[in-house]
Amino acid sequence: MSQLNRMKASQLTHLNADGSALMVDVSDKSSSKREAIASALITTQPQVIALIEQALVKKGDVLASARIAGIMAAKKTSELIPLCHPLALAKVSIEFELNAETGQIFIQSLCRLQGQTGVEMEALTAASVAALTIYDMCKAVDPAMMIGPIQLEQKTGGKNGLWQRSQQAALSPTEGNQA
Amino acid sequence: MSQLNRMKASQLTHLNADGSALMVDVSDKSSSKREAIASALITTQPQVIALIEQALVKKGDVLASARIAGIMAAKKTSELIPLCHPLALAKVSIEFELNAETGQIFIQSLCRLQGQTGVEMEALTAASVAALTIYDMCKAVDPAMMIGPIQLEQKTGGKNGLWQRSQQAALSPTEGNQA
Amino acid sequence: MSQLNRMKASQLTHLNADGSALMVDVSDKSSSKREAIASALITTQPQVIALIEQALVKKGDVLASARIAGIMAAKKTSELIPLCHPLALAKVSIEFELNAETGQIFIQSLCRLQGQTGVEMEALTAASVAALTIYDMCKAVDPAMMIGPIQLEQKTGGKNGLWQRSQQAALSPTEGNQA
Amino acid sequence: MSQLNRMKASQLTHLNADGSALMVDVSDKSSSKREAIASALITTQPQVIALIEQALVKKGDVLASARIAGIMAAKKTSELIPLCHPLALAKVSIEFELNAETGQIFIQSLCRLQGQTGVEMEALTAASVAALTIYDMCKAVDPAMMIGPIQLEQKTGGKNGLWQRSQQAALSPTEGNQA
Amino acid sequence: MSQLNRMKASQLTHLNADGSALMVDVSDKSSSKREAIASALITTQPQVIALIEQALVKKGDVLASARIAGIMAAKKTSELIPLCHPLALAKVSIEFELNAETGQIFIQSLCRLQGQTGVEMEALTAASVAALTIYDMCKAVDPAMMIGPIQLEQKTGGKNGLWQRSQQAALSPTEGNQA
Amino acid sequence: MSQLNRMKASQLTHLNADGSALMVDVSDKSSSKREAIASALITTQPQVIALIEQALVKKGDVLASARIAGIMAAKKTSELIPLCHPLALAKVSIEFELNAETGQIFIQSLCRLQGQTGVEMEALTAASVAALTIYDMCKAVDPAMMIGPIQLEQKTGGKNGLWQRSQQAALSPTEGNQA
Repeated sequence: MSQLNRMKASQLTHLNADGSALMVDVSDKSSSKREAIASALITTQPQVIALIEQALVKKGDVLASARIAGIMAAKKTSELIPLCHPLALAKVSIEFELNAETGQIFIQSLCRLQGQTGVEMEALTAASVAALTIYDMCKAVDPAMMIGPIQLEQKTGGKNGLWQRSQQAALSPTEGNQA
Repeated sequence: MSQLNRMKASQLTHLNADGSALMVDVSDKSSSKREAIASALITTQPQVIALIEQALVKKGDVLASARIAGIMAAKKTSELIPLCHPLALAKVSIEFELNAETGQIFIQSLCRLQGQTGVEMEALTAASVAALTIYDMCKAVDPAMMIGPIQLEQKTGGKNGLWQRSQQAALSPTEGNQA
Repeated sequence: MSQLNRMKASQLTHLNADGSALMVDVSDKSSSKREAIASALITTQPQVIALIEQALVKKGDVLASARIAGIMAAKKTSELIPLCHPLALAKVSIEFELNAETGQIFIQSLCRLQGQTGVEMEALTAASVAALTIYDMCKAVDPAMMIGPIQLEQKTGGKNGLWQRSQQAALSPTEGNQA
Repeated sequence: MSQLNRMKASQLTHLNADGSALMVDVSDKSSSKREAIASALITTQPQVIALIEQALVKKGDVLASARIAGIMAAKKTSELIPLCHPLALAKVSIEFELNAETGQIFIQSLCRLQGQTGVEMEALTAASVAALTIYDMCKAVDPAMMIGPIQLEQKTGGKNGLWQRSQQAALSPTEGNQA
Repeated sequence: MSQLNRMKASQLTHLNADGSALMVDVSDKSSSKREAIASALITTQPQVIALIEQALVKKGDVLASARIAGIMAAKKTSELIPLCHPLALAKVSIEFELNAETGQIFIQSLCRLQGQTGVEMEALTAASVAALTIYDMCKAVDPAMMIGPIQLEQKTGGKNGLWQRSQQAALSPTEGNQA
Repeated sequence: MSQLNRMKASQLTHLNADGSALMVDVSDKSSSKREAIASALITTQPQVIALIEQALVKKGDVLASARIAGIMAAKKTSELIPLCHPLALAKVSIEFELNAETGQIFIQSLCRLQGQTGVEMEALTAASVAALTIYDMCKAVDPAMMIGPIQLEQKTGGKNGLWQRSQQAALSPTEGNQA
């Protein structure tokens, strides 16, 4: 409760004093280089990973499509998330790591800009849409495929500087993250 | 492996024989009423749930914003997921369940249409973007907030009829996350 | 008050019983030819009308731009209005009537489709965006230009058949504005 | 007429000398903090206001949806209005004032940015789409609901500094604005 | 001139009698399966083709990106081309043919739907945007790369049935097309 | 081949070392005024040009629609071309030149911004979509109409300074360009 007090309602920065939504003013924030890394995990069956890798060998487009979809989604973030500011993203990239033993795909996205507000939502949106695209392309084989955790891994820049997912934070409910 | 053989590469329906992506032909599929239910789980700290609920009492907009964002995202699915067909969605709705003890928010989306292809991606996209919107509005309080599992719960309609996530997979909302 | 009772809260069709927004189910509504006509009035100074007309003579693009913007906006309605269904519009047209004496421009939009839900919002959005475009192109000359009333003039099709703005409401285009 | 001469056709800044539309060059304008406030009035029946307020008490989403729709529309302005520049909006907010006696809703939007061109169109678009969203959610109850006047109230920043709707400008055709 | 008479102005079907643009009414056209094939040619230097092919071997994404971009653009056609109807595309596919000797890339797109209006614009848009994407990814190597001809190859369905680019039509100004 | 070596694969700047697509980092590039001019040629029959010109006299909207569509498309470039950066375009304009003798329309687009990356893709997209819009509005009269060459004419700004399509480059495959 004391902790709740520390987390004053005013920390829900996207709400006015009366609880109504607004796009917060960033016009007085200083411009700095900002970067965010987010990740998404997909859990499917090992055979599906084999199919995707097989397709890769054949110049298949599963991961290439997911990468393009994720990059394009990063650019659409302010259209999707109501209170996000439109941003002049300077870089977006997405990496995939396939684990045929565990049947998992680890997706990592990176966004960067020189600007007045952070790019966490852009990185999270990129990772999410890349994951949804993989689901779409493989759902005929495994509709039970699960997406998550989707989480922020690291961010730099701005007043608060570096933030990194702490070791312990990653311990419990995130266990699914250890591919 | 024999299982892999059953899962013939041709089951990656969004790839041509040569592994290149395409938007599959649905012009000969029969039109039926189709529905999909998807879900997303958010794991944060109990205090954040308290803040959101408190905001609710004050006519706060966290969940209302997330609901609108999710509904609008369902309509944007074919713009986000490269090989999804543009669909004339007949219904979209999103429900939230807050658990102040576990610090979790359960999001359930439902999409319906009369048409030639299913609405799983629309339901999954709605749930994902609703979750991302909650993250955005609460990230100042808890940047470590995690999203997932995001998963299909049920779908009906079309040639394959009813599909439901199996009982054991659904056991507890987080357990599903442990691959 | 008795009237309020007749207007049961359930008539706010875009809210659930608990007051939360949803995109209403139209999958069981019958398909019929539906049409809506909406209008918007712009009030500016007579000289601005002269400038626009003068531009017309010189192949100017004020009205052509506003017409295109309005038609394109009709197609974007479901992206703009959260609970609108995506519709396969069959026709959109926009007419302008300039009155150099009163300094007014009357905009009339018409939308039509064969489908399960009406096109009022599409017609209203088309008229609104056409008006905003005229404002944009003339705001250097008259920033005080006013838009309104924007209103539905007529709709046909669907269960309710013909609806027409009543004679007295339509009396004079500005009078309707006096609350 | 002399006045028309003062308002030289060249003041229609979005037209070339030959009357064709163009997106005007702002690359040499100096960057300053710019802000615009716009408003829209909705006129409906007092009972509808009561329904909306009643819904509010029940955590209803009418105004929350309209607010989100308006904020998102501000970000879409350059997609809707052909000659508007894409802008990095720094802040968007929308306020509502309900008058159950007159049956009116007053909508006020505010946009701000640090940049080379003004945000009037963004504020006007936000107010317009918020109004259209309210219309959409209440049209089953009152399809005759009217929107307007929609007008710029004030703008600051840029070469021209402060502009405010003058008292007399608000006199005649705007009378409907006095809720 | 007699030919011009045969081509009556009314054949510019997207203009009203007074020459103003409109989205033509298709609500009374019968629904049929419609298909269109379009193509775009890119002319660059043989070395660029080698680079793209080399990248292919390395799982490069040039063509995969162009394919996804083209498919997504087909779905955006009605947002780009002012008077195009929003369509429920049933299929979109894109093929590439690289010629390392002539330094050319031939792009062929195919769109299909069951509906009331043709898909030529969708096929042409898909081919154009796929070509622009290749340009974007290779412009650092060859900014002089040329796109064109972009042309309709064939369409079927609707009242007019099959249309095919005739042999002689391809003769003169298209000569650039003979790779 | 030695030339190919000079054109190192690394020059395909939109690919990672492993050949996967990424949106390249521009955050360290210096900001300068950048401009690009692109063109597109349409080849149709002389009679079609006459129809368009005739429509012009009657205030017809063919070219006005194409101009607006091209300008709006320039603003959509980063939504269409997967690896393009979102840009704050400062100016967009489009010119047409009709040649009734050759049956050709020459389209020239110009884009300008103060920023960290060039606007070639914006200019090319504007010209392409303007051309597609003309095709759309005239396809009932001449479905065989061809678009191309579409090409960059000139760019300035940035590290590389002025680039101009060289005389000889314009010689052979572009011959169709000499209207």
